[in-house]
Amino acid sequence: MSNQRIFSVETRGQGLYEFTDGVRRFVSKNSIESGLLTLFVRHTSCSILIQENADPSVQYDLDKFLSKLIPDGRHPSMNWLTHTQEGPDDMPAHIKSALLPTSISIPIMEGELVLGTWQGLYLFEHRRAAMTRQIAAHISG
Amino acid sequence: MSNQRIFSVETRGQGLYEFTDGVRRFVSKNSIESGLLTLFVRHTSCSILIQENADPSVQYDLDKFLSKLIPDGRHPSMNWLTHTQEGPDDMPAHIKSALLPTSISIPIMEGELVLGTWQGLYLFEHRRAAMTRQIAAHISG
Amino acid sequence: MSNQRIFSVETRGQGLYEFTDGVRRFVSKNSIESGLLTLFVRHTSCSILIQENADPSVQYDLDKFLSKLIPDGRHPSMNWLTHTQEGPDDMPAHIKSALLPTSISIPIMEGELVLGTWQGLYLFEHRRAAMTRQIAAHISG
Repeated sequence: MSNQRIFSVETRGQGLYEFTDGVRRFVSKNSIESGLLTLFVRHTSCSILIQENADPSVQYDLDKFLSKLIPDGRHPSMNWLTHTQEGPDDMPAHIKSALLPTSISIPIMEGELVLGTWQGLYLFEHRRAAMTRQIAAHISG
Repeated sequence: MSNQRIFSVETRGQGLYEFTDGVRRFVSKNSIESGLLTLFVRHTSCSILIQENADPSVQYDLDKFLSKLIPDGRHPSMNWLTHTQEGPDDMPAHIKSALLPTSISIPIMEGELVLGTWQGLYLFEHRRAAMTRQIAAHISG
Repeated sequence: MSNQRIFSVETRGQGLYEFTDGVRRFVSKNSIESGLLTLFVRHTSCSILIQENADPSVQYDLDKFLSKLIPDGRHPSMNWLTHTQEGPDDMPAHIKSALLPTSISIPIMEGELVLGTWQGLYLFEHRRAAMTRQIAAHISG
């Protein structure tokens, strides 16, 4: 079993897409007792994020807060943007990707990710159009 | 000496709690010349952060800025929140935890963390109630 | 070839300074097929960041957004700052460094960083004066 792989996540608009289960299976197949999992997203207009997976209202409010903080390019408060030729959601997506994680590392202890009880792994899509997003995963000893 | 452990930090309200010394001792006991330390916080309503440890006013201003940017749920500007049943400080805590680090990796060179002169390691608590927070630490070669 | 080094980046004011090429050369000289590169910035008033390297307007807008979100200490909206003795750009720099990455980890697959097509590595300087910034790099197996 390789200690590396690429995860693909299909997105259909802004918001959080959970992929915890696939990552847990990848870790489990590696049969490593003690190690470190690193995830890295290969894009600059989406993010990876650990958030609460118990109540969907957390994800809803988080997405809404970020869109208030960094509105779409058509919002009057964003009329100073110069990078507009890829669509009004592109530059706000780059800003969100700067503020949220591009890589996350999680220790593996006793064969399992040390994620807390309520922690889930998400691809956070910042673009409106449907996208195929790649997340590179690596397990170190 | 194991290359993994869980640090516990007791918090009593919002703000930064330094735990640099415990981490330095853990690295020192591992007697590794060259490696990588990773820290991972097992919660979605607090963060880990590297900040200046020389002047406490830095931590005070940082905390204040974040609370202006993401006010408590009782503030009129936050009346759109839907995730409110765990208290008015819960959803703002989740938002802060999305914007600040969940994991940090620091190279170990010549047996020591390469932290800069003024860099300290902090648990950044975003909830008001007293909490016990867990940070998983892993050293790779 | 050592699996560790310190990169130095000379900055002359706020903005993004690309250092992707130096990092690629360091990875290439290590001749490692599969591994993990970690970068760590040894300061609390600048950041490291992965951003789009195709269109300079992305960097311009990103810098402008952050300076609107966290204005210079002389701006009336920042008159509550207490940490002011190191200059009006110092505390805003600490806040930016809390919100943007201090460490980033990137898998190495088939001998190369898995950076996406448009991803570049940047030192993001938040101070106005000229600075020499250090980034520690470590490659794990």
